[in-house]
Amino acid sequence: MSDPCYPFPVDYFRRIGLLRRRLTRAGLPGLLVTHLPDLRYLSGFTGSSAALAVTRRAASLFTDGRYMTQAAEEVAAAKVRIVSGPPAVAAVEWLAAQPGLDAAGFDPAWTTVAELTRLRAALPSRLRRSFLTALAAPLVERLRQVKDEDELAVMREAALLGCKLFEHVLGIIRPGMAEIEVAAELEHRARLLGAEGMSFDTIVASGARSALPHGRATNSPLPTRGFLTLDFGVILRGYCSDMTRTVYLGKPKAGERNAYEAVFEAQEAGIAAVGPGASCGEVDEAARGVLRKAGLAETFSHSTGHGVGLEIHEPPRIGAGQTTRLLAGMVVTIEPGIYLAGKYGIRIEDMVAVTRSGGQVLTPAPKALIEL
Amino acid sequence: MSDPCYPFPVDYFRRIGLLRRRLTRAGLPGLLVTHLPDLRYLSGFTGSSAALAVTRRAASLFTDGRYMTQAAEEVAAAKVRIVSGPPAVAAVEWLAAQPGLDAAGFDPAWTTVAELTRLRAALPSRLRRSFLTALAAPLVERLRQVKDEDELAVMREAALLGCKLFEHVLGIIRPGMAEIEVAAELEHRARLLGAEGMSFDTIVASGARSALPHGRATNSPLPTRGFLTLDFGVILRGYCSDMTRTVYLGKPKAGERNAYEAVFEAQEAGIAAVGPGASCGEVDEAARGVLRKAGLAETFSHSTGHGVGLEIHEPPRIGAGQTTRLLAGMVVTIEPGIYLAGKYGIRIEDMVAVTRSGGQVLTPAPKALIEL
Repeated sequence: MSDPCYPFPVDYFRRIGLLRRRLTRAGLPGLLVTHLPDLRYLSGFTGSSAALAVTRRAASLFTDGRYMTQAAEEVAAAKVRIVSGPPAVAAVEWLAAQPGLDAAGFDPAWTTVAELTRLRAALPSRLRRSFLTALAAPLVERLRQVKDEDELAVMREAALLGCKLFEHVLGIIRPGMAEIEVAAELEHRARLLGAEGMSFDTIVASGARSALPHGRATNSPLPTRGFLTLDFGVILRGYCSDMTRTVYLGKPKAGERNAYEAVFEAQEAGIAAVGPGASCGEVDEAARGVLRKAGLAETFSHSTGHGVGLEIHEPPRIGAGQTTRLLAGMVVTIEPGIYLAGKYGIRIEDMVAVTRSGGQVLTPAPKALIEL
Repeated sequence: MSDPCYPFPVDYFRRIGLLRRRLTRAGLPGLLVTHLPDLRYLSGFTGSSAALAVTRRAASLFTDGRYMTQAAEEVAAAKVRIVSGPPAVAAVEWLAAQPGLDAAGFDPAWTTVAELTRLRAALPSRLRRSFLTALAAPLVERLRQVKDEDELAVMREAALLGCKLFEHVLGIIRPGMAEIEVAAELEHRARLLGAEGMSFDTIVASGARSALPHGRATNSPLPTRGFLTLDFGVILRGYCSDMTRTVYLGKPKAGERNAYEAVFEAQEAGIAAVGPGASCGEVDEAARGVLRKAGLAETFSHSTGHGVGLEIHEPPRIGAGQTTRLLAGMVVTIEPGIYLAGKYGIRIEDMVAVTRSGGQVLTPAPKALIEL
């Protein structure tokens, strides 16, 4: 492949093979894939407009003329077909024309009501009501939850790139500079180190703003004294990284230091609970329980973590009561935080890969409280 | 409002008032809004999880605990209600509980099949089949197409910021540097000038890569001779800018210069055709016709432009045969391009606001061929 961003000879045939086994188990002879991360996972196509149709024997990727060259370079495991109308309509027409094919699944979580109406209208009238079948479970998303070696290699690299960025910005942070300058420096360095972009709006939240769990960088100047939360991620060959560190500008008070230690301990307890077979609820409780003992449970207003991969937020959700069990190959974040409105907030987040025996932290940046 | 990113006292009450008139005309007593740009347009809320419910008398915005402080700061025209479950479910329950309300619209283009199932399940059984009604036309999107003065002021600023970035990178472009370095410099400067982020993946496509209409920046080095296409945009207070310039590294051959002149002429013809009452198809044809006369129609493989605003791609589409008529206040891109696979590509793009008498270019960066 000519694109220097894709040096890995990813085995897309294997992935489509795995999908076919799931389709057979679900009793479905065909599948329409329109969610772009699913499509990229199965075929390698990175463009912004396409649909993939998979049957037990064939796989076709439909896209438009803008992507003719790119699709030919990127896609080997499916036959590329250039169409002038909407790719999903062409994919459904193709599926309906396959001999003996009487049904095809679609993912109701990634198909709008309007799109389904359009797709049904493209079918011959005898098939209109019966052909397209809502999947009972998200087949491709389930496959994507368990990362293969190709994916883990890229995600390790993306996570380490994140660590380098953290180290870099530690060297430039000064009281008085704007949050947005920290974000700019971090994002610029990310680009120079090969990131395709950031996986979400960079969070740089200082002083009382650190109490906003989603405090995107603003023009606010960094205080001479107070917490500073940095939550950011890069995209590398399509895969997202995600990490958070909270540092202190100046000298923390005893209460602030204690609060930090509680979050740190909760985060470590969450990581220690990660392993194959552990339920997401158990992992959440491992972290939440530490904050509860510290009297801080009320200030931990979100879930402990989430899956990450081609999307920044993927299943599973590491939240209270979640019964999904972790499997080796999943990559999740562990990110407890506390938020004291008007005062400060603290969050620490790592990416953790589930291994055969436990969890491996992919973001080994320092976590002991850094005073700047 | 405390957030320095929102200095404009935008009249959200007026926007909700306009929406109510449309609802009345559509015979709908209520509306569920879940598409985040629609919700931001109507209420000012910038968070990532919320639903808005509007009736003839009341408007409620539902979000979760993470956004308690932010929603209180940002939202005045709707009552903020913090909920623990999915905001859209809470919004539908609230709508169904309003006295005398027997139906509420939802936008089928922004509601998934799975979401609709979930929302219906939350309704009392007597309302389950009848209450939620798919909108026949996208009411909020239609409102958003025509920008008000608040929006035009921000979009002018966003577009001018784009022009500054172009001017800035012209000064640093050198043969041999990687495309990604150009993107990094451009994006870094964007941040320092106040952009919240980029409105899409920055395109820096040089040499033969300029023939890819969507050639995101790669590690490829800039050639000593050849075209270089820069297509980029910023996000400023939520609004997207979008512009493209193609420059030449070295001295162009006569054929290359002629091709550039044809695209330039086509783009100017497209701009000249913009005005209230013009159909999108006419504007497309104005640009396309120039390239047809130059024998280049086959190489112009996409539409002439698109609406832009809170989203980088909004209706209307400036494409062949499109009958939608432009209205004063719309902001569209005019961006014809030609792509000669394996050789080069050329695209020139401006943002143009439709005025009462014609079109006003918002991106006045130079367009005569620049040789670097």
